[in-house]
Amino acid sequence: MFIVIEGIDGCGKSTQAGLLVDVLKKSKAKPKAEVLHLHEPGGTRLGEAMRELLLRTEPKVEISARAEALLYNAARAELVEEVLLPALAAGKHVVCERYFYSTIAYQGYGLQQDTGALHGLCAYATGKLKPDVVVLLDLPAAQSFERMKRGKDRIESRGHEYLEHVRQGYLLLRSREPERFRVVSALGSQDDVHRRILEALADVLP
Amino acid sequence: MFIVIEGIDGCGKSTQAGLLVDVLKKSKAKPKAEVLHLHEPGGTRLGEAMRELLLRTEPKVEISARAEALLYNAARAELVEEVLLPALAAGKHVVCERYFYSTIAYQGYGLQQDTGALHGLCAYATGKLKPDVVVLLDLPAAQSFERMKRGKDRIESRGHEYLEHVRQGYLLLRSREPERFRVVSALGSQDDVHRRILEALADVLP
Repeated sequence: MFIVIEGIDGCGKSTQAGLLVDVLKKSKAKPKAEVLHLHEPGGTRLGEAMRELLLRTEPKVEISARAEALLYNAARAELVEEVLLPALAAGKHVVCERYFYSTIAYQGYGLQQDTGALHGLCAYATGKLKPDVVVLLDLPAAQSFERMKRGKDRIESRGHEYLEHVRQGYLLLRSREPERFRVVSALGSQDDVHRRILEALADVLP
Repeated sequence: MFIVIEGIDGCGKSTQAGLLVDVLKKSKAKPKAEVLHLHEPGGTRLGEAMRELLLRTEPKVEISARAEALLYNAARAELVEEVLLPALAAGKHVVCERYFYSTIAYQGYGLQQDTGALHGLCAYATGKLKPDVVVLLDLPAAQSFERMKRGKDRIESRGHEYLEHVRQGYLLLRSREPERFRVVSALGSQDDVHRRILEALADVLP
């Protein structure tokens, strides 16, 4: 099973992905399946190099909006080819923080690039591989900023209104794939959010 | 004016681009225009980082065919946005070694990826900016291998038959844009090739 965790910065993707991975690892379902915890960009040497390049601010490298979308998709193409497809073919479960929905939400709705062109780009990078389910951790941008130290990286330095556009973009993406998305409020304690995720995934978890 | 020099490895792109740049710099045409000599991937900090990543073999980073095409196009998108569009808007002449035709010839015809998808990717990266003229330095793959030290980088390690497919790909691209392409034999001395290029460009050079 391929589960993607999406949501704006500070919504708790890493924490919740970790808790979900623990649940999957403890599952009594037979046959026992290995569980991979991945994050984007990353999971391959190329992906980690892209992560370092995209998220650092010093020394600053100019990256235009289109180049940024292409770099994220290069890391994604490598992750699909090198890690995701082999893992899924071997019957493993994968929990991945972010996938191509992040490109559409951040570059498309956040930076107001052409979402049609971005969908085409992501389809090329992923070979059209889609997850079984997307958990969207929904959080108002104002709460995101309260949770994070501001101005830490390229994304976070873009500000409040930008991040609210990204959030609304995610909700639009959900409305186009309602059967694949599970929207979960990211407000409240880690335990509360974890419980909500398990409820939302009750019909698909092994 | 935007001139692209294309051709397989070892065909003499750098040398010939340099000689052409000298001719343009010495042009008596008024108004005097600045001349930029660029190469792909490169010309920006991001482009140079991509060049280092794509062409080195040690330490080896796994890069799948799709990720490779995306990385070249990330470098290209940055070059278009940061360098090419401003230079052309300011009336400068640009001579660029390689452009998106390289992606179609190498990844499409050489590595047998879907050329339609690659054209879409390149259109995204370049915002559909095309050069005024493409000088295609044509060389049989066998000659290329004689000229180069073999096995030096990722591309060169792919071998003879691959490079001949790339060459044939370039010739196919020419057949689709005959008005934009000038095919020049890369056989013979540097001076001979330079003279042929000047003849082939007689109607467009200032």
